[in-house]
Amino acid sequence: MSPVTIAVDAMSGDRGAAIAVAAAEEAVRENEALSLVLVGSRGELEALLSEPHPRLRIVEATDAVHMHERPSHALRHKQNSSMAVALRLVRDGEAQGCVSAGNTGALMAFGRSLIKMYPGIERPAIVKLIPSLRGRCHVLDLGANVDASAENLYQFAIMGSLMAAAVSGLPEPRLALLNVGEEEIKGNEQVRLASHMLAQCDSLNYIGYVEGSDLFRDVADVVVCDGFVGNIALKTGEGVAAMLMELLEQAFTRSLYGRILGWLARPTLMRLLRTIDPARHNGASLLGLQGVVVKSHGNANERAMLAAIRQSAREVRLEIPRRINEQLDELML
Amino acid sequence: MSPVTIAVDAMSGDRGAAIAVAAAEEAVRENEALSLVLVGSRGELEALLSEPHPRLRIVEATDAVHMHERPSHALRHKQNSSMAVALRLVRDGEAQGCVSAGNTGALMAFGRSLIKMYPGIERPAIVKLIPSLRGRCHVLDLGANVDASAENLYQFAIMGSLMAAAVSGLPEPRLALLNVGEEEIKGNEQVRLASHMLAQCDSLNYIGYVEGSDLFRDVADVVVCDGFVGNIALKTGEGVAAMLMELLEQAFTRSLYGRILGWLARPTLMRLLRTIDPARHNGASLLGLQGVVVKSHGNANERAMLAAIRQSAREVRLEIPRRINEQLDELML
Repeated sequence: MSPVTIAVDAMSGDRGAAIAVAAAEEAVRENEALSLVLVGSRGELEALLSEPHPRLRIVEATDAVHMHERPSHALRHKQNSSMAVALRLVRDGEAQGCVSAGNTGALMAFGRSLIKMYPGIERPAIVKLIPSLRGRCHVLDLGANVDASAENLYQFAIMGSLMAAAVSGLPEPRLALLNVGEEEIKGNEQVRLASHMLAQCDSLNYIGYVEGSDLFRDVADVVVCDGFVGNIALKTGEGVAAMLMELLEQAFTRSLYGRILGWLARPTLMRLLRTIDPARHNGASLLGLQGVVVKSHGNANERAMLAAIRQSAREVRLEIPRRINEQLDELML
Repeated sequence: MSPVTIAVDAMSGDRGAAIAVAAAEEAVRENEALSLVLVGSRGELEALLSEPHPRLRIVEATDAVHMHERPSHALRHKQNSSMAVALRLVRDGEAQGCVSAGNTGALMAFGRSLIKMYPGIERPAIVKLIPSLRGRCHVLDLGANVDASAENLYQFAIMGSLMAAAVSGLPEPRLALLNVGEEEIKGNEQVRLASHMLAQCDSLNYIGYVEGSDLFRDVADVVVCDGFVGNIALKTGEGVAAMLMELLEQAFTRSLYGRILGWLARPTLMRLLRTIDPARHNGASLLGLQGVVVKSHGNANERAMLAAIRQSAREVRLEIPRRINEQLDELML
């Protein structure tokens, strides 16, 4: 594999730098082609590193963006934050991708200000690969924008399709718009107009509308919605999954018989858990920037952070930004 | 219990009149204070009834609204449909509530045209009681409107609070707006403005924003959103639940050991299944009309249809429309 360098914003997650450092050490151990740059307080990071590693270096950043800081405030006052420094490493070519578990809005704002967007793309979107029973599905936008015009949705659809093609190797990913199910109220104006625009575009495999429940039924490879809807749908789904896992846990601890059964069934249940474990599916991509920027969940544990680092390395290896850039022209209206 | 009469639109569901008739026979059997009016084709309904019952009568309707018919078309051409006739029984006081598994949009349109709305309420909303791990939560709107102004959201919040108080006996139900989690993009303009309006209202126990995952965490008793977001969130949640149940099913059928375990664990898992069984939670209320109108899922089975009939009878007994009407005045801006 060709060598890949990823900048890791080590200071912005909820759980502190220890998570980022541990994940980074594991990442360079498992992947010999990977080099990482840990960005943050040198003293703190050096103390956390178990030993020096030739493919793990530290770049000092004296400041950090807080989780609840306004993006505009961060942009004005936090140019020396670990987040901004990590993104600048990507801009300057010292790293090819960046991972941050920090404030999404600030990451978005710094991303747009430090790394160029694709020409013609108005807004970046957050995209995530959602696991389902049979396949996987790229869903965007998951919260970069609280509303979206038909034109925005159309652009998200193009970027999402190109990304799905590059990531999953599908020649013609099935593209759909997320909509409500009832026939008579088929979506708001933006969604209907975006649907009309997409139906005109021969280069996209647009299959029409899908409903919330279709996200897990391998009906589409790319599903597009505005960030408000996407964020709420994703979190509702996570809420249901968490509730069911807790119910299952309760079921197998309620009685002695239940506990024995639970013990016997543990390997079976663990396999199930692994399939939907959020840590394994951590990592959302900022799509629209001419560079790989992966957002990790704010309270990611070590395993989840490792998943996000792996994802950014994969996107770099697949040259996602270059491939999207090359094919964007012919698809833009 | 005081006697209650419910009109059942027997012809509009996906699965035909047999479901409605079977559910109706069970409903009058289990509840001696309940009378039902089955509305539809007399010949078909009589053939389906296993025997005459003193509290089960048939009212003829010569037509039916199709599942994919436009509401405006239904309103113009289907005044003799089982749906319209059932609602007219409520309007005329021959029934106190109505249940239909038909086309939501048409039910909404007929409901608005045949039954008065509360004074001052601009649009009805669809509300459903969502089960969670610890409590239950009234969520609205679930698809009556694809968009909603701040004023609409405010009115939904009032109606939802009054309904939760009446249904659950909570003196001050915790009221929240559904929003995205990230601080910096706290919702679109409508949500922010509605939040401001609700915060001013001393008679409501407004607790602020909640996220999608909070729907199942007993954080609020009433959660308000527009119908587009609500519909997609609900269906995404249902999709996740269906996927997990299928994964569980697979886990316990994959190997002989798994099958034996599954057989041993069946009672435990069945209890879990019952907790989240959609059939037990079938029935959404059209809120805003001065009458009880319950929408059953289109492809409800007999048990689900029975749940919807029970719900409408409960809402009639609790005099939900009268109670909301009485308290609405002081809460409206």
